[in-house]
Amino acid sequence: MTDTLLSSATKELTIGFGRPFVMIGERINPTGRKLLAEEMKNDDFSRVEADAIAQVAAGAQMLDVNAGIPLADEPALLAKAIQLVQAVTDVPLSIDSSIIEALEAGLSVYQGKALVNSVTGEEEVMERVLPLVAKHGAAVVAISNDDTGISEDPDVRFGVAKRIVQRASDHGIPPEDVVVDPLVMPIGAMGTAGQQVFALVRRLREELKVNTTCGASNISFGLPNRHAVTGTFIAMAISHGMTSAIMNPLHADVKTAIQAADVLIGADTDCAEWIKDNRDPSSPTRERRGGRRRPSN
Amino acid sequence: MTDTLLSSATKELTIGFGRPFVMIGERINPTGRKLLAEEMKNDDFSRVEADAIAQVAAGAQMLDVNAGIPLADEPALLAKAIQLVQAVTDVPLSIDSSIIEALEAGLSVYQGKALVNSVTGEEEVMERVLPLVAKHGAAVVAISNDDTGISEDPDVRFGVAKRIVQRASDHGIPPEDVVVDPLVMPIGAMGTAGQQVFALVRRLREELKVNTTCGASNISFGLPNRHAVTGTFIAMAISHGMTSAIMNPLHADVKTAIQAADVLIGADTDCAEWIKDNRDPSSPTRERRGGRRRPSN
Repeated sequence: MTDTLLSSATKELTIGFGRPFVMIGERINPTGRKLLAEEMKNDDFSRVEADAIAQVAAGAQMLDVNAGIPLADEPALLAKAIQLVQAVTDVPLSIDSSIIEALEAGLSVYQGKALVNSVTGEEEVMERVLPLVAKHGAAVVAISNDDTGISEDPDVRFGVAKRIVQRASDHGIPPEDVVVDPLVMPIGAMGTAGQQVFALVRRLREELKVNTTCGASNISFGLPNRHAVTGTFIAMAISHGMTSAIMNPLHADVKTAIQAADVLIGADTDCAEWIKDNRDPSSPTRERRGGRRRPSN
Repeated sequence: MTDTLLSSATKELTIGFGRPFVMIGERINPTGRKLLAEEMKNDDFSRVEADAIAQVAAGAQMLDVNAGIPLADEPALLAKAIQLVQAVTDVPLSIDSSIIEALEAGLSVYQGKALVNSVTGEEEVMERVLPLVAKHGAAVVAISNDDTGISEDPDVRFGVAKRIVQRASDHGIPPEDVVVDPLVMPIGAMGTAGQQVFALVRRLREELKVNTTCGASNISFGLPNRHAVTGTFIAMAISHGMTSAIMNPLHADVKTAIQAADVLIGADTDCAEWIKDNRDPSSPTRERRGGRRRPSN
């Protein structure tokens, strides 16, 4: 069993095999959110705080925080966003940036053990990010592409993941602190995208024994009724061993599919969470019936 | 690739790896349906016909027909039900009985190549059912229990399935005409029920190379919001290679999960069916948005 332990100042969380799936809220990210980007640039973090609270209320066990705004001082913005989010919620955070100085600024203010999002298999990126992760005793998301780009061959992606795990180990980061992202492509563009992820997740778990995550909503890019596709995809991936995803916890359909998947892999002991959430009339889950058993037909 | 070809008088259908999942409508079954049982016993088959039409309209590619009513003349009822269902629909049928005379009566009036539901690994059952299946050139559902009962050990269940496939072959029934049911237990009673099915389905596909089916709704027995559990379960099982299920096609949630799963294993070429069903305002699928792409957030 591989357990990735993460923490905030006051709370611990474990991503692990056989445990309930960890939903990492993706909302605090100005990419594609013009209004949020504008506000953050103008030092208005009210929406960041509201999004943090709403996602945790919806069930997110972690939050991803990204402050990638063109022409802005990303390190300062990311540090501030992290401090404010940690002031209004108590879940562990994923510190998300492609800029090393921003990761550094975020880690330096973070209270607890963070998840750094992300390192790739590119030489230069590994040599810049991994020492920083090691220095702060953090965990890290490893994305399985390298200097040659993103391979469509799952074996190549597995090889990249393996190399990152080994390199992390060279830097003193244990394998359980590397959470591999197998890279999710839009199924509308590549019909094999799902099968690739399922096979790769199984191999990452069985052979490399690492936890996994992904940017789940990418799978449904371009399709109608995309939340149904995303939720179904996550459930299928869970059955192959996926242990977390960066996703939007506010969509009830997606959350319901994840909770059902937890039941179906036996991670929701005695179905207690499912029964609680689906019996409680204040629950946001659809199709409640006062908790009485209903015949299938 | 293993293709199980089935037919009605006018239509062929293939259950197979990489093909769209086959929904076998379960509604025409008096077990637990008092009113239907009463009507059928009194020679009133209007509900049988209506259920047949409704299930096909909802997307069932096959229908299961069962006439198991205590103290009734099951062979005569089953034969009549099959004739009437074949008169109002054109999908292939699964002829469902535990009584050999009823299977015989059903097969003798059936037009096309039917699926016989079912044979088990019990010696006496195999020796009575398999010759009948062979004689009519039908296909058969093989349930993986034997004279010792239903094992909780997936290896034992695999062994039973393998023995049935071999015995079928001795009777001249090719492996592609044996559709194995791995036996689905309620997840509420056994937390490993899901994982067992997933592992067994993968093995049945990879090693025994047979198609699979199951009574899917059994998984959610006793749980609230059970259609969400059933739909998620089928989607997960599809990702491990399950190719059909006997289920209720009238539940939109379950059907949506299956259609999304077909997209995600690449069985819905270019996502054409998904896009059609989710763009068409007359479609029963939830959460349509006029076909325009929606951002995830």
